[in-house]
Amino acid sequence: MNDIKVLILAGGDSSRLWPFKDKLFLNFLGLSLIEHTLYQIKKTGLRNIIIVTNIWNHRKFSLLKQKNKELNIVLVKQNNDYGMAGAVVSAENYLKNNRILIVGPSDLYDDKLYNDFFAKLKTHPKGIIAGISHDEYFPGGYIVVNNHLVKGIIEKPKKDKRPGNIIKIIFDYFENTDLFLQSIKEETSPSDDVYEKAIVRMINKGFQLEFLQYNGFWRYLKYPWHILDLTQFFLNKIKSRKGRKVMISPSASLEGEVVIEDGVKILDNVKISGPVYIGKNTTVGNNSFVRQSIIGNGCMVGFSTEIARSYIGNKCWFHNNYIGDSVLADNTSMGAGAVAANYRFDGETIKSNVLNIVIDTEKKKLGAMIGSGARIGVNSSIMPGIKIGSKSIVGSGLVLSEDLQANHYIKLIESKIIKKNIKK
Amino acid sequence: MNDIKVLILAGGDSSRLWPFKDKLFLNFLGLSLIEHTLYQIKKTGLRNIIIVTNIWNHRKFSLLKQKNKELNIVLVKQNNDYGMAGAVVSAENYLKNNRILIVGPSDLYDDKLYNDFFAKLKTHPKGIIAGISHDEYFPGGYIVVNNHLVKGIIEKPKKDKRPGNIIKIIFDYFENTDLFLQSIKEETSPSDDVYEKAIVRMINKGFQLEFLQYNGFWRYLKYPWHILDLTQFFLNKIKSRKGRKVMISPSASLEGEVVIEDGVKILDNVKISGPVYIGKNTTVGNNSFVRQSIIGNGCMVGFSTEIARSYIGNKCWFHNNYIGDSVLADNTSMGAGAVAANYRFDGETIKSNVLNIVIDTEKKKLGAMIGSGARIGVNSSIMPGIKIGSKSIVGSGLVLSEDLQANHYIKLIESKIIKKNIKK
Amino acid sequence: MNDIKVLILAGGDSSRLWPFKDKLFLNFLGLSLIEHTLYQIKKTGLRNIIIVTNIWNHRKFSLLKQKNKELNIVLVKQNNDYGMAGAVVSAENYLKNNRILIVGPSDLYDDKLYNDFFAKLKTHPKGIIAGISHDEYFPGGYIVVNNHLVKGIIEKPKKDKRPGNIIKIIFDYFENTDLFLQSIKEETSPSDDVYEKAIVRMINKGFQLEFLQYNGFWRYLKYPWHILDLTQFFLNKIKSRKGRKVMISPSASLEGEVVIEDGVKILDNVKISGPVYIGKNTTVGNNSFVRQSIIGNGCMVGFSTEIARSYIGNKCWFHNNYIGDSVLADNTSMGAGAVAANYRFDGETIKSNVLNIVIDTEKKKLGAMIGSGARIGVNSSIMPGIKIGSKSIVGSGLVLSEDLQANHYIKLIESKIIKKNIKK
Repeated sequence: MNDIKVLILAGGDSSRLWPFKDKLFLNFLGLSLIEHTLYQIKKTGLRNIIIVTNIWNHRKFSLLKQKNKELNIVLVKQNNDYGMAGAVVSAENYLKNNRILIVGPSDLYDDKLYNDFFAKLKTHPKGIIAGISHDEYFPGGYIVVNNHLVKGIIEKPKKDKRPGNIIKIIFDYFENTDLFLQSIKEETSPSDDVYEKAIVRMINKGFQLEFLQYNGFWRYLKYPWHILDLTQFFLNKIKSRKGRKVMISPSASLEGEVVIEDGVKILDNVKISGPVYIGKNTTVGNNSFVRQSIIGNGCMVGFSTEIARSYIGNKCWFHNNYIGDSVLADNTSMGAGAVAANYRFDGETIKSNVLNIVIDTEKKKLGAMIGSGARIGVNSSIMPGIKIGSKSIVGSGLVLSEDLQANHYIKLIESKIIKKNIKK
Repeated sequence: MNDIKVLILAGGDSSRLWPFKDKLFLNFLGLSLIEHTLYQIKKTGLRNIIIVTNIWNHRKFSLLKQKNKELNIVLVKQNNDYGMAGAVVSAENYLKNNRILIVGPSDLYDDKLYNDFFAKLKTHPKGIIAGISHDEYFPGGYIVVNNHLVKGIIEKPKKDKRPGNIIKIIFDYFENTDLFLQSIKEETSPSDDVYEKAIVRMINKGFQLEFLQYNGFWRYLKYPWHILDLTQFFLNKIKSRKGRKVMISPSASLEGEVVIEDGVKILDNVKISGPVYIGKNTTVGNNSFVRQSIIGNGCMVGFSTEIARSYIGNKCWFHNNYIGDSVLADNTSMGAGAVAANYRFDGETIKSNVLNIVIDTEKKKLGAMIGSGARIGVNSSIMPGIKIGSKSIVGSGLVLSEDLQANHYIKLIESKIIKKNIKK
Repeated sequence: MNDIKVLILAGGDSSRLWPFKDKLFLNFLGLSLIEHTLYQIKKTGLRNIIIVTNIWNHRKFSLLKQKNKELNIVLVKQNNDYGMAGAVVSAENYLKNNRILIVGPSDLYDDKLYNDFFAKLKTHPKGIIAGISHDEYFPGGYIVVNNHLVKGIIEKPKKDKRPGNIIKIIFDYFENTDLFLQSIKEETSPSDDVYEKAIVRMINKGFQLEFLQYNGFWRYLKYPWHILDLTQFFLNKIKSRKGRKVMISPSASLEGEVVIEDGVKILDNVKISGPVYIGKNTTVGNNSFVRQSIIGNGCMVGFSTEIARSYIGNKCWFHNNYIGDSVLADNTSMGAGAVAANYRFDGETIKSNVLNIVIDTEKKKLGAMIGSGARIGVNSSIMPGIKIGSKSIVGSGLVLSEDLQANHYIKLIESKIIKKNIKK
């Protein structure tokens, strides 16, 4: 087993994650998503890791490699824009004649998947493709399974054309990668799904791919609201602990699992309803209420603020706000009375425009998604599912019901009349 | 005495109560208004009750009759639209040759009125008409009294044409009803006040009607804001008690008389300032403040909400709201930061438009009156005395300063400019 | 020393202090500013005081004189509008052949200045002019010093033309006032700075004026936001104490130095973070949070309100507000959800228009400045540094981003659409 190399495809962009970026470096519970992936791999005993990066995140990966010297990490910069297939080809020199496990770090699953994988490995299969039963529609690959073997992959079928309910996770094992590399190269059109087509081509050639049925938690980080799912995934794992130099008022009340990092202050009459993670040096101010949320480092959760089921980055400022089911990147501040609404009047699921396509988030509760360094004015109202680009400003007292691109300032133009105030 | 039949005139409509309806079935402290009336009658020992219903509430009265088998209730559907007089005529078959006490269940008074009535009855009067001294203007009937006898009834005089300050309560006794029935039939024009005219006609014929001066609490439920008066009336009677499966946080503080029904949860740092009634399975969330109010069943009084001197129906949702001197029917929800304002800038009494007539509510503090199933958007502001029809929606961030009819959606159209945010 | 007369120049108007007036009678910690000045003088042992008033504040000074009979106060009404120089001339009859210390009661400083003055006095100087090193720009007089002697005074130089960083305080001593009076009379043009020109004229004639370098707290009350500086100055002196008939809830928490006057009520879950002064009969309502502020008498700091670094007059009403770095005069009320914003989106210092000139307040945090008797509507937002005239009304739900003159009502005109609410 120890000769299996893990190929991590980290070269994808995060364009559908806007207003957030660099999804693999999003921080959950003090570690980036990619660190969680590495940590999960490390626990299995696998040590040889190839990471295909892109040109923008390569430097961050170099730092990561230095921090993880107990792993044998090779970094490869993806030198083309041909998606996952191109990523595999970029790493070709490190793959030849190797047993290889390809993982997509945007997929999130429990350690159980590795356990199941190693169990199946004992039967010496030529290849393994993992999938999960998922009844909601997912705009990715669906696996056609027959008698424990993968018979096909249908990439992004329409909602009513799904061949079943088994979704493909990027967790693919090949005993010998050469055939896969060859299949990729045989594809001639540079489409999005060359990777999957190459697998289908192998199957069609008679190559036997075992189907690994995974039955545990799974989430895919593609759209910004997926960050909320990951937040709950990570929160469900935490156990209460307290760091050093922590100050908790005797009148504060903590319930459930709550992680409190170093230097945190929990002031008077605060209620924390776990699972909740509170990052270093963050202050939860008087009368505030935090539940089922991750809050980053150095935040000021100001007076009488409620944060529910949300992901908050570092150095964010709040003041008498309601933040429900929202994602806020670093350095965001919200003025007093600003609200991130999270529920439609008609109770319908919330839609969101991503790269000019309206996507149904399948969520009935979804608040705001706000990029780093944004400022939200006092008494402003952000409608459910609205996205705000980084360093943008939402003026005071307005109702934001459309996405706002980065580095822009939206300001209310009010009509008013001024008249003499006739006194009694 | 036991042969006196009580005739309850329950056939009126509730059109002036809009956005609320079916006034006799409004719930106070777990019982409908008509149940309170029946309960009050039951305490006197009277058992024979005739209720004149209308076609819409007849079914509800049938259920009520089943629930009150210890009373001998006869239901009569009013078969005309001639008001109270028509109601009496509808019940004609049950009235002949009977001692009859006619009560209007929209009038609310203490048990003392019955006690005074029975005392006067011992002098064997032919008839009794009850009234109360009331210095504020009331748009109803005024009684002219002379030497303990009723000499006339002036129906709805203008404010400056009142013949005194004695208001007629619908609480009329006749030893023999036949003459009253006959007087009604002698009226030829089908006006609103045939009932009162028939009484005056009897007086003019020489029939002697004793005046019963009542000196206690009295309210009439006609306009929606009267619900607030009834709320205070009922609240003033309560004694603290707690139901089963109640959860009260140690940091919550309860003062005064507070009724807490089964399954209620009072969370951290809540303040309840009695008299307050909290219906079954309602949760009063963290940091909320409730005073002098009735709250129905299954409500969620969300984080940091203040409810003062208000009537709240069942299954209402709140979130960081201020609700002052307001009436909210069932299933109303208010978004975070929405406010029901209750005081004019000029401190004047609040006016309200009822069936196209502007009525002075005579109240200096009056909030919103909201029909069932309405939804109020985040950070919206409802001006004092505004009424909202059932199932209507008030958009986020707007100032509602006119009544909104039922099943409508009012939405703010904001002008905004978006410009590049020049960074320093 | 005891023959020194103190001449207090109290005849200036307070036009630049709008929307506030009568600056010397602004109340801090239960005493007016002028009383603080008199109290400071009294501590030095000086007893002979001449106060030059104007026609509007003369009556108030008369009352003040009666209250301070242990001082020998002479009141002189200024009979001209020639500024400080005119004030001195008005008092001419009381000054001749006297040692005189001229103080401007708009300057605020520690007792140390008097101590330094008396020390210097022992060297029997002909005259003393006090100044303070101050690196920020100040639109007043700058002193040119050479070898401990005053060599000149430059009145209101431009920011980049300052002759140094030594600002002139109105704290001027003359052993014989006659020469100063004569110098004033020799000035022929009636400009703003005849007072300073007269001093320069004396210097030019060879009169030797010692420079007194003061190194302590100093503030000048000219613009309305200066009241915030004075607030902090006075607050820094307080020691915790409690008056009679005070009610403090066991769940309230007080930190730092807090003065609680008679009849104050501090309700449940309140946090007071000193230094804080709370005037007589004021109630700090449930869940409110007050820090580094002065609050006057008879206020109602309503449910869940935060007041930070602010000056609040008497009889003000709050309800779920955020008031940061603001000055509110007596009888101001704020509706629920109204916010006084105190920080610009761009973090720049806040500018304010005073008598048609835009002044940089040099403050990055500055809220609203509101005259007496104003009313602020629910959910309205007042932008940083905005001033509101007395008895004016700010309508509900609007964003006020320009000053509002006194006795006016600004009201939002919203565009809305109303449509049928199609139910599912």
